[in-house]
Amino acid sequence: MKKILNDPSYAVDEELDGLVSLYRNSLRRISGTNIIVRKDSPKIGKVSIISGGGSGHEPMQCGFVGSGILDAAIAGDVFSAPPGEQIYRAIKEVDGKNGVLLIVNNFAGDIMNFKLAEELARGEGIDIQHVIVNDDVAVSIKENRRGVAGGILVEKIAGAKAEQGATLNAVREVAQRVIDNSRSMGVGLSACTLPRTGKPLFELGQEEMEVGIGVHGEKGVERTKLKTADEIAKILFDRISTDLNLTLGDEVALLVNGMGATPLMELLVFSRNVVELLAAAQISIFRSIAGSPVTSLDMAGVSLTLLRLDEEMKEMLLAPESTPYFPKII
Amino acid sequence: MKKILNDPSYAVDEELDGLVSLYRNSLRRISGTNIIVRKDSPKIGKVSIISGGGSGHEPMQCGFVGSGILDAAIAGDVFSAPPGEQIYRAIKEVDGKNGVLLIVNNFAGDIMNFKLAEELARGEGIDIQHVIVNDDVAVSIKENRRGVAGGILVEKIAGAKAEQGATLNAVREVAQRVIDNSRSMGVGLSACTLPRTGKPLFELGQEEMEVGIGVHGEKGVERTKLKTADEIAKILFDRISTDLNLTLGDEVALLVNGMGATPLMELLVFSRNVVELLAAAQISIFRSIAGSPVTSLDMAGVSLTLLRLDEEMKEMLLAPESTPYFPKII
Repeated sequence: MKKILNDPSYAVDEELDGLVSLYRNSLRRISGTNIIVRKDSPKIGKVSIISGGGSGHEPMQCGFVGSGILDAAIAGDVFSAPPGEQIYRAIKEVDGKNGVLLIVNNFAGDIMNFKLAEELARGEGIDIQHVIVNDDVAVSIKENRRGVAGGILVEKIAGAKAEQGATLNAVREVAQRVIDNSRSMGVGLSACTLPRTGKPLFELGQEEMEVGIGVHGEKGVERTKLKTADEIAKILFDRISTDLNLTLGDEVALLVNGMGATPLMELLVFSRNVVELLAAAQISIFRSIAGSPVTSLDMAGVSLTLLRLDEEMKEMLLAPESTPYFPKII
Repeated sequence: MKKILNDPSYAVDEELDGLVSLYRNSLRRISGTNIIVRKDSPKIGKVSIISGGGSGHEPMQCGFVGSGILDAAIAGDVFSAPPGEQIYRAIKEVDGKNGVLLIVNNFAGDIMNFKLAEELARGEGIDIQHVIVNDDVAVSIKENRRGVAGGILVEKIAGAKAEQGATLNAVREVAQRVIDNSRSMGVGLSACTLPRTGKPLFELGQEEMEVGIGVHGEKGVERTKLKTADEIAKILFDRISTDLNLTLGDEVALLVNGMGATPLMELLVFSRNVVELLAAAQISIFRSIAGSPVTSLDMAGVSLTLLRLDEEMKEMLLAPESTPYFPKII
């Protein structure tokens, strides 16, 4: 797969420069780091929300920095956790003296580096907590579940709560409730290509797909024959709704996420069937997102996320935000 | 290229169903047609803004229906103009009795069908005008220039003006001014694949790219060796800024548009250099968009659009809108 890049070694550095030069009214980059912060940070008296992770998932996470979502995001190298010292630096930079929540995806490297930063910050008297996003039902053992697209709903709801002036405990509590009530699963139709190597991470035949992919170009848990949009929707919906124990009368937020190289036409065709499956199960949809907020470089594919809602989450989903790339919720 | 579809013959029908089922609070589809309208239409007393064109460019145009942008959009089949009778039907449906503006891309089929609908509507006493978008500088003869990504800036500015209660003449006048002051050009790194055939529209070597592509999967005006992001930015910037006669002190809106299969990482790397080129020319950027609002199915590639701004356009760019997919301007 050809790419629009200069020296691939500088792709992450250059894209972060690109991001802040396009959105200079609202974002700034801390010089010499891969930390993107709200231009108006620190917001004194507000709980700060920080996330981060490997690059290659754009716009997640740096594109979600702004009022109502993240105070800071730290980008690692492609598919690599950001260094602990940069996470610590981000905490110090945006700390509004009323507590910090770290939203961490469940990958060994991220957990280790965020924990290190959290301990350093706590040692300095910063009131800091974390939540771990693990929405990927493709992995059966719960503690091994990866954090995938569902994390953006955690960020949205926790971000809105913090923006409204809630305490750290209240923000952490609603973030954890979102995690407990959301599940995701995805399929890949093509492998992605790392900028440095220029080669696809695996080979997949013209009539094959991977079911249960992560967001780091991994293969899925199973390789099958390529299926129709409706068949894919059914596979993902069944796995998620069973795991989440969705029942008649539940109300959900629906997130359909493209993996980077899948056009919106296909996401909308896929969504149509998901909406029908939810209607047939008498589960109502409060709001929907279909787009590509959490990508895996140039992988073709789609993931489905469902979040069972309560009244507080619904209110937070509709709260205003101002970030370059958080998807619209209308 | 594999696709997430059912029967490809129904791809457009199914994606429109998907769109309105996801965004049922704000959109509706007129039964038996490919017309998407604001749910709260007709808006009596407001000038109605209508656009449309072939499918395969999602989210353009149907994803831009909503408050502040379009009152209605009509989707043709993939890369085909919508039928005149559906355009006429859309006009009748959203007419708010204070005039209608059609925003038409400069393709023979679109021009013919929109003109037909316009004449029918005028015959019934509807006050109706049109503008023709022709921003593609890859074509040297001005009257043959295609309407590409720049059309979304016309829609945004005309849409905002109409929402504020301006007259049809005032809306048409500012729309024309946007057209007169905007230019676009793009490159393709891969061909797109039509849903019905499943085959790429042309073959391109691993080290080649097409310069001056349209948005219907056409080849460019020239095939060259694959260049770096910075080199591509320079080629497009030079052509556009010369044609637009940009001069020191001008203020522009910047639109970087991915063609469907290009991840945001690459668009941001490309954008970084465009911002540098503008700075070097002492042209200031008022606001930027980088995303994939105007696609060509699953083509990989990027286009650049620059719009020279005046005070009225700047005010309209910042006006609120509420559509599923119009890119954020922050």
